[in-house]
Amino acid sequence: MRLTVYWPGRTKNAALRELEEHYLRRIRPLASCEVVVTGTSRGLGERAAEKILEIEARGLEIRLKDDYIVCLFDGGREMTSAEFARFLGEREASGGRGTAFVVGGFLGLAGRILDRADLKLSLSRMTMSHELCRVVLLEQIFRSLSLMKGHSYAK
Amino acid sequence: MRLTVYWPGRTKNAALRELEEHYLRRIRPLASCEVVVTGTSRGLGERAAEKILEIEARGLEIRLKDDYIVCLFDGGREMTSAEFARFLGEREASGGRGTAFVVGGFLGLAGRILDRADLKLSLSRMTMSHELCRVVLLEQIFRSLSLMKGHSYAK
Repeated sequence: MRLTVYWPGRTKNAALRELEEHYLRRIRPLASCEVVVTGTSRGLGERAAEKILEIEARGLEIRLKDDYIVCLFDGGREMTSAEFARFLGEREASGGRGTAFVVGGFLGLAGRILDRADLKLSLSRMTMSHELCRVVLLEQIFRSLSLMKGHSYAK
Repeated sequence: MRLTVYWPGRTKNAALRELEEHYLRRIRPLASCEVVVTGTSRGLGERAAEKILEIEARGLEIRLKDDYIVCLFDGGREMTSAEFARFLGEREASGGRGTAFVVGGFLGLAGRILDRADLKLSLSRMTMSHELCRVVLLEQIFRSLSLMKGHSYAK
């Protein structure tokens, strides 16, 4: 199974970066998983929201392939970990395209990126910081792969 | 507002510990918030589940006060961040007892601790590791307090 996780801009918080590495190290014996850091705006204030979203969208479009695309989205579908594991199992069984997870920046994702999603996924009804979302997603991918492979990590 | 967060055993993952501190530093200008690490089992294998839950329950009972008790629980109520902020606002307005958040260990919480809950809260339909839950809870408390105080942290 080939998984790629896309997000705009390097994670700024060092502890969260360390956790990303922590979960990636655990995921990689179970599946191919690459993180692609895409382009982001620099020096634009928060008021330039549309411009930032546009720049990030272009950065994502350049890198996204013909994968099955899962966009993280507040209003997306919520799953239990078992359902998410089932979903990854189906992706694996399909044997075709890889699976891409797209996590937006602090403003979320532009509409036209969301429009490309085969699945919109919500990790929680609560809004988490976009950097914390990255870690929660990776932990969930690790948990699901462990469940699929029959490992005991399920706590 | 007086918040206390209880969990059994020190967080083992150093990056997650750092994130706990990160969010506590941001919470404390906004509200009184203490973390109480309660007793946990040592040297018991995972098979001794009931014994571990019992030891952790006793550790919690010794420390819990006559607070409004929120237990984190998979089957609990899901809230949006806005709903959670409203909940904290109501707790503050009540002016009475403090509010205690109880996060279980890797086995969750014993039934008799859950029975004491005034509110059972679920952070996500997905199961997260109990140590990651601690961080997600603290981030959510910080986010909600910021919303309540009209700060701009909402990303």
